[in-house]
Amino acid sequence: MQVGIIGGTGAEGRGLAARLGAASVSALIGSRDLARARETVERLRSDGGGASLEAATNDAVVERSDVVFLAVPFASADDLAAAYGDRFRPGAVVVDLTVPMRFHDGAPVFVDVPEGSAAERLRARLPPPVRVAAALKTIPASVLGRLDQPLDCDDFVCGDSPEARAAASDVLSRIPTLRILDAGGLDAARALERMTLLAVGLNKRYRVRSARFRMVGL
Amino acid sequence: MQVGIIGGTGAEGRGLAARLGAASVSALIGSRDLARARETVERLRSDGGGASLEAATNDAVVERSDVVFLAVPFASADDLAAAYGDRFRPGAVVVDLTVPMRFHDGAPVFVDVPEGSAAERLRARLPPPVRVAAALKTIPASVLGRLDQPLDCDDFVCGDSPEARAAASDVLSRIPTLRILDAGGLDAARALERMTLLAVGLNKRYRVRSARFRMVGL
Repeated sequence: MQVGIIGGTGAEGRGLAARLGAASVSALIGSRDLARARETVERLRSDGGGASLEAATNDAVVERSDVVFLAVPFASADDLAAAYGDRFRPGAVVVDLTVPMRFHDGAPVFVDVPEGSAAERLRARLPPPVRVAAALKTIPASVLGRLDQPLDCDDFVCGDSPEARAAASDVLSRIPTLRILDAGGLDAARALERMTLLAVGLNKRYRVRSARFRMVGL
Repeated sequence: MQVGIIGGTGAEGRGLAARLGAASVSALIGSRDLARARETVERLRSDGGGASLEAATNDAVVERSDVVFLAVPFASADDLAAAYGDRFRPGAVVVDLTVPMRFHDGAPVFVDVPEGSAAERLRARLPPPVRVAAALKTIPASVLGRLDQPLDCDDFVCGDSPEARAAASDVLSRIPTLRILDAGGLDAARALERMTLLAVGLNKRYRVRSARFRMVGL
């Protein structure tokens, strides 16, 4: 099962690439610009953990991957869904990492999405055979990218089908120190995306960049 | 500063009463029915932790308390706001514990609130001099009521003013094993109320009743 990342050179995508590489998961690290993807993979290799990673264009990620992590800004998701919708592999699962948030005068502002969440919006814009999950919404890029630090938190995976959740969970459960929780249907993203805003606010108020969630009693 | 609970005999209110009693916080435990309030306080006393608690009617809670925890079903909040709005003490802080959720065929369903959250809806329905905070939204009643078990989690307090947040936090920070976090403005309740639904779903999926949140990296 081929894994790939669209937007693998951005902060969140690079963090995921680092964690997958450290766990020896074969993954295509995509960028619009192949040179940039190569640069990212080279850097991860020189840090000692990128042997299982391969640089690719976003186009190649879409055409070759069965599980595709979408690690782009929320503002780009619509265009990518339109451009790639019909080009995913049969049975492909797209795992949405986007959060509908923008910064206004330095303060995070939630973007209200008519569909309820960015994940449900993406679902509505992809053809039905492509399945959609959401994951890693609440884990800060800065934490994901610091391989010297354990994640030591939970990731909430939701999806439009048990198959989509299982595909995302199978990949992510290979990352040590991260516990994967089944958060149910895709509408759980309504909670998860708002939790990101909550965590960003806590980061600001408590002057850290590392706030993330762990369930107790579970 | 007098503390009181409207709905102190329901599951969540009783759990809060138990924790406040165990921490020797003087609090009025309110019910529509004084006899029921007395029964609850008697039971907490016989468990050894209710010496600081006093049974009262909800009316007396409103008239005598400076910090009023509203621990009623979401469906009752509108009526209570209408009935008590003008009767709170000057400078009173109402701390909303309600979650806009109902059960449909045994499954939890979120009730979309036009104001964005139950807490903001309450804010809109109370006169401006009454200040509003939200707290304990994400802590299950069953956990709150089990005094033999540490809470071992975080509580996210948000409010319409720093004063409202401080009043709620001052009271709740007297409960051991609970960390109080400043979640900012009242609109943070949009995240917190959805987190409750997420936790209820996790409880169901993982067959527990105790799922609650702790921030890591903070």
